Amino acid sequence: MQRITDGLRKEGKTIGFVATMGSIHKGHLSLVDISNSSADITVVSIFVNPTQFGTGEDYRDYPRDIKRDKDLLRRRGCSILFYPDVDSMYKKDFKTDVYVNGLSQQLCGITRKTHFKAVTTVVSKLFNIVKPNYAVFGQKDAQQAIIIRRMVNDLNYDIKIMVGPTVRERDGLAISSRNVYLTEAEREDATVIYHSLKQAALMIKNGERKSSLILQRMKSMISSKKGAKVDYIEVVETTELKPVSEIVGEVLIAVACYFGKARLIDNIIVKV
Amino acid sequence: MQRITDGLRKEGKTIGFVATMGSIHKGHLSLVDISNSSADITVVSIFVNPTQFGTGEDYRDYPRDIKRDKDLLRRRGCSILFYPDVDSMYKKDFKTDVYVNGLSQQLCGITRKTHFKAVTTVVSKLFNIVKPNYAVFGQKDAQQAIIIRRMVNDLNYDIKIMVGPTVRERDGLAISSRNVYLTEAEREDATVIYHSLKQAALMIKNGERKSSLILQRMKSMISSKKGAKVDYIEVVETTELKPVSEIVGEVLIAVACYFGKARLIDNIIVKV
Repeated sequence: MQRITDGLRKEGKTIGFVATMGSIHKGHLSLVDISNSSADITVVSIFVNPTQFGTGEDYRDYPRDIKRDKDLLRRRGCSILFYPDVDSMYKKDFKTDVYVNGLSQQLCGITRKTHFKAVTTVVSKLFNIVKPNYAVFGQKDAQQAIIIRRMVNDLNYDIKIMVGPTVRERDGLAISSRNVYLTEAEREDATVIYHSLKQAALMIKNGERKSSLILQRMKSMISSKKGAKVDYIEVVETTELKPVSEIVGEVLIAVACYFGKARLIDNIIVKV
Repeated sequence: MQRITDGLRKEGKTIGFVATMGSIHKGHLSLVDISNSSADITVVSIFVNPTQFGTGEDYRDYPRDIKRDKDLLRRRGCSILFYPDVDSMYKKDFKTDVYVNGLSQQLCGITRKTHFKAVTTVVSKLFNIVKPNYAVFGQKDAQQAIIIRRMVNDLNYDIKIMVGPTVRERDGLAISSRNVYLTEAEREDATVIYHSLKQAALMIKNGERKSSLILQRMKSMISSKKGAKVDYIEVVETTELKPVSEIVGEVLIAVACYFGKARLIDNIIVKV
């Protein structure tokens, strides 16, 4: 991979990069589009990274379909697929962590304590392997995008990070590889996540500035669905991801919620 | 810096890199020679990295003489000097650590608990800024070289790490920027470090395989100098840096010792 991108860069080509865990869907494909709009060549990686799953999480069950993925990516204009195996990514003596302090412990980092350390470590590896000029991440994983941007700035990676908007189903549910875990009933109930975010946006538009009242409303909407188990609902500022009680400037409203065995996340950014 | 090396690499030039804290001496210059023997262009960085000094350590006192350094480096064939200031290396919101587990806690890592985390973080930054093909480190900082090699392998940096032999004064003292801290008497006594390492090598050559006996002998040699205060003397294997009681294969014999306000380190590698 390094020889290939070295060669391309020597020819004056720019490289765009989309890191995925496969199970390619419209969200990923929209990131490929964004990459192609800036870069000459788009590289996509597929790597279901074991270290970023906690114990009891869905590493084994995570959907995999490389044949379908390859086909979708090729047709969407991805020129190079990087598809390493676990043993070549993590040799026996692997010892190194890349860690973004503070940000990695907020929001999803509270339940998923080692998740973001594993994400920044593997993304750092992928950046060194793919050597892209651009890397595109999805807004659905808002915290991940913020953490990776911080890592890139702190470690001086010469990579421009781009964030693509969340792609949604017709009824508003954010597209995710984990949606396949939902039963039919759960799938229907899960739309409440986006409805609650829209409701929050509406309340803010109508002048509400108290996070507590917005969160209360969102919680009651989501809790009205029997199968829903809220992990967190938070209103945070977008640099340190610290909760805010009064909405000013730019805030991230983020939800993580279990429906059956699916842990779904979604968010919106609101500016006042 | 990134634009310069991008340009050079596009022209097909290879880049060698020597990271220093300045106060350039024969040891550094020997690393420049090694870089020049493999790479077309040698970049040297001078950055007295505040984060790798513990509280009470010599960050303020660390010798600095950029004019002399520039001159020495230029005459030795260094083409590019990278000389950033602290504020541009560590912005206000800096949050990211690169950390090599295990290895960073052995030997010097016992007294200098946060030292190697700071070293791997800054070296990671410098690698991303300079984008070298080769990076040369000194054997005098044996643990540093081993940790950086581990980091490079783990994070897939496309950089070949080279290690240059320790350069010594005529009487055997390893050349170090910190030797300037020594009084005349301390300077004379400090040669005992290398003598003790030579003695260890001789004992092993003569068939001794018990680390305890070798360490005992070294300790008594060093302790015979009144001003010496041993931090550690260890015999360790060279992959995990764990102490060995019986010498087999390749071992690192490493010493850290205070003479007055100078903390000096030295080491040899012995194969049996």
